[in-house]
Amino acid sequence: MKTSERILQTSLQLFNEYGEPNITTNHIANEMDISPGNLYYHFRNKDEIVYLLFLQFEEQITAVLETPQSRNPTMDDMWLYLHLAFENIWQYRFLYRDLNNLLSRNKKLQSRFRRILDRKAQTAITICQGLVETGIMQATPDEIETLANNVTIIATYWLNFQSIRSKQEGADGHSFSLGVYHVMALVAPFLKENARQFLYKLGRDYLS
Amino acid sequence: MKTSERILQTSLQLFNEYGEPNITTNHIANEMDISPGNLYYHFRNKDEIVYLLFLQFEEQITAVLETPQSRNPTMDDMWLYLHLAFENIWQYRFLYRDLNNLLSRNKKLQSRFRRILDRKAQTAITICQGLVETGIMQATPDEIETLANNVTIIATYWLNFQSIRSKQEGADGHSFSLGVYHVMALVAPFLKENARQFLYKLGRDYLS
Repeated sequence: MKTSERILQTSLQLFNEYGEPNITTNHIANEMDISPGNLYYHFRNKDEIVYLLFLQFEEQITAVLETPQSRNPTMDDMWLYLHLAFENIWQYRFLYRDLNNLLSRNKKLQSRFRRILDRKAQTAITICQGLVETGIMQATPDEIETLANNVTIIATYWLNFQSIRSKQEGADGHSFSLGVYHVMALVAPFLKENARQFLYKLGRDYLS
Repeated sequence: MKTSERILQTSLQLFNEYGEPNITTNHIANEMDISPGNLYYHFRNKDEIVYLLFLQFEEQITAVLETPQSRNPTMDDMWLYLHLAFENIWQYRFLYRDLNNLLSRNKKLQSRFRRILDRKAQTAITICQGLVETGIMQATPDEIETLANNVTIIATYWLNFQSIRSKQEGADGHSFSLGVYHVMALVAPFLKENARQFLYKLGRDYLS
């Protein structure tokens, strides 16, 4: 693997584990057993590393949030989207942990991140409209818009909430499955009775 | 007003406006036209100021989250709670803006803040149980618990979400009303038809 790629991987791991504000370029170089000079040969500063990691995250989450073009989305699609989106957020969780701090330091990141939130909300709207069209869901356009914002907030801040509320240090894979369940619970009450029961069953299977 | 109170008030205002990580004790002394020495006569460091502001916030939000003991809560109570809780969060919004950063720096704050989140969720559960008992709401205990967590997340992170999504700098009073509306929209689908229509009407009146 190229040194620049190894720097990015090591940074991601350290940022996720200790929080980006607590990690310096010296920590990263130390962890890799390279000199700070070697690191600076590849990256101007820590912000450049953060930005490149963000671009990787952006590329992945954008791919995840593509809705299928040729047919209406199903409830299975919904689980899959959510699972993949949460998995992706988990992989780059340092971005979400200090989100407002990170964005206020970097306007370029801010506008790109805003576009990701817009896209998350838009994907939720598209899926809900599909469920309404296939008669599985009953909701007005206003209800769908508010629901889509709430879905976006829960998906964005779930890990932060969980890391404050749980007494153990940090969060783990199970806490992200619980996040998927909480998002589905926002959608559930708008589903027709059969679909709602099916959803709860999927949820119990998924969590166990 | 005593100097120590003026220091707290000025700090709160500067933290809210510029973000706590961007404000030093020198900024605070400058803004008040006092010497840094005078400030240090009253407070050991910035963390002590943050902690005292947190205690003020804690006292207020704890009072807000008391549910009425003598009768079941009504839907009007629910608006009132939410309005007061959001107003309170708005008043001390710097705490919420950099929440995870703040809490990771200060373990004492972390356990107290966790108790506030627990209390928020518990209040939501109590209100929902009251609405179920009076026949206005239909929801299982599991549904109520998940709903209460989602209510707590939206109430906690609404301002952060809004400040990223809206292109204007920062958020204002209107954006906090919209937050109350989004929380009520979580509860709405569990209400009986009449109550749900009444809720949406209350929401439109409140936002306009």
